[in-house]
Amino acid sequence: MTTAEFDVDTALSGTGDGTYGAVLTPRWNIADIANGGYVLALACRALARALDREDPLTVTGHFLSPAVAGPATVEVEPLRAGRSVASGQARVLQDGRERVRVLGAFGTLGSEGGRLTRSGDGPPDLPPPDECPTGGAVGPDGTVAPISERFDLRFHPDSLAWSRGEPSGRAEVTGWIRLRDGRDPDTALLPLVVDVFPPTAFELGYAGWVPTVELTVHVRGRPAPGWLRCRTRSRVVGSELIEEDAEVWDARGALVAMSRQLARLPRPGQP
Amino acid sequence: MTTAEFDVDTALSGTGDGTYGAVLTPRWNIADIANGGYVLALACRALARALDREDPLTVTGHFLSPAVAGPATVEVEPLRAGRSVASGQARVLQDGRERVRVLGAFGTLGSEGGRLTRSGDGPPDLPPPDECPTGGAVGPDGTVAPISERFDLRFHPDSLAWSRGEPSGRAEVTGWIRLRDGRDPDTALLPLVVDVFPPTAFELGYAGWVPTVELTVHVRGRPAPGWLRCRTRSRVVGSELIEEDAEVWDARGALVAMSRQLARLPRPGQP
Repeated sequence: MTTAEFDVDTALSGTGDGTYGAVLTPRWNIADIANGGYVLALACRALARALDREDPLTVTGHFLSPAVAGPATVEVEPLRAGRSVASGQARVLQDGRERVRVLGAFGTLGSEGGRLTRSGDGPPDLPPPDECPTGGAVGPDGTVAPISERFDLRFHPDSLAWSRGEPSGRAEVTGWIRLRDGRDPDTALLPLVVDVFPPTAFELGYAGWVPTVELTVHVRGRPAPGWLRCRTRSRVVGSELIEEDAEVWDARGALVAMSRQLARLPRPGQP
Repeated sequence: MTTAEFDVDTALSGTGDGTYGAVLTPRWNIADIANGGYVLALACRALARALDREDPLTVTGHFLSPAVAGPATVEVEPLRAGRSVASGQARVLQDGRERVRVLGAFGTLGSEGGRLTRSGDGPPDLPPPDECPTGGAVGPDGTVAPISERFDLRFHPDSLAWSRGEPSGRAEVTGWIRLRDGRDPDTALLPLVVDVFPPTAFELGYAGWVPTVELTVHVRGRPAPGWLRCRTRSRVVGSELIEEDAEVWDARGALVAMSRQLARLPRPGQP
């Protein structure tokens, strides 16, 4: 039996008719809300099992209401079973309310990762983890979030300028990330990993809650054991919405996940 | 009554209970298959109507079976109606078979477009349209696709090197695009526009059918009338899958849409 926190907290009960039981724990919370990547990862567990394919290739979650610690149900509807790709839908429900709806395509990935089309386009350049400051997600009330205790986070010294009171104006965060309990990364963990870094919007001077409307993750390879490197970046700031792209690289330097989310910006004057 | 092809070919019948009738025309085909962006745009029309919000903010389609010319039904399930964002699901069916399942969040966009976070990150640098060669999507049999007759496409002289028998190895295509019948772009058209350029995989030496598994479009602003500029780009080539990002800029230089799709690469030896 595994005792890794992530595996315990995404464990499913159920007999294979496509409906699974789960219990969300508060360990992946920011303030009192379950991290969106955690809920998406739970849905992916159910999809992988129901579709009988190990790896999420592309998954999209639309976040409909805030998930909280406690029992949850995941309902999977298989949509298509092809030779290399199987697709399905998952709904995560609590007390009859839908928290997130997910569409996903699953398959079997190699361990080699993808080939980059452009040279000079590799992982972010980072000092060794020991030379990078730690840090973590902070809730709207300023307290460190429980999810930050799950991960060992080592940010580039130039990242998180906002936490020193001087937002850089550069909507980018880079750093190292791994689970603190020593569990190695796999393709089940990656949909959570892409959603752990603090919002890039903070570097643009926004403060407060930046709720995810939609998060799409492409998993491109099975990660090697050890540290992951992550870069999050935003390009276009609208009046109400911002996109945030994340890339995750494994210890061999392979790009193993790419994600994009659309999030709502805090309204001016809203803490 | 509009006579613009795109509006005629995405017209919906139905009385507002969430089920709409439509007729796919062959005008947006590649070979005998309806372009995925066209079918996604049709689903967006139904979602916008059922959710009573004009603009798609983020929409994801999973392509389950090839859509063809002929009658179709679009079934919308509203999921959430918030102050600024409303979410829903759409299914496009033909003869009882699901062609595409869509999740979308809709709202109201301004006409100003988004603000770029980085300078030097603007639209692709292109010669004027009159100095750019035309070109179009080509079906697996080498014939020009009907969809290419709908659009006026003017590619950067360095793009489409594969069509001259010398794939560049650079997975990028840039060019101008507008509808040939003079209909100006709007947020309803953009989910189609992102899927019109030939696959970037052709520049990497692949030939044949590159079917879309999943396509996500973020619409970030209402486009100004006139030409659009588009850049498509791929970064990671797996053994079976490739991602393709598109950006669409309007005549004022505003970034009005960003998309990413995951597509299956042709198998070696498959034409």
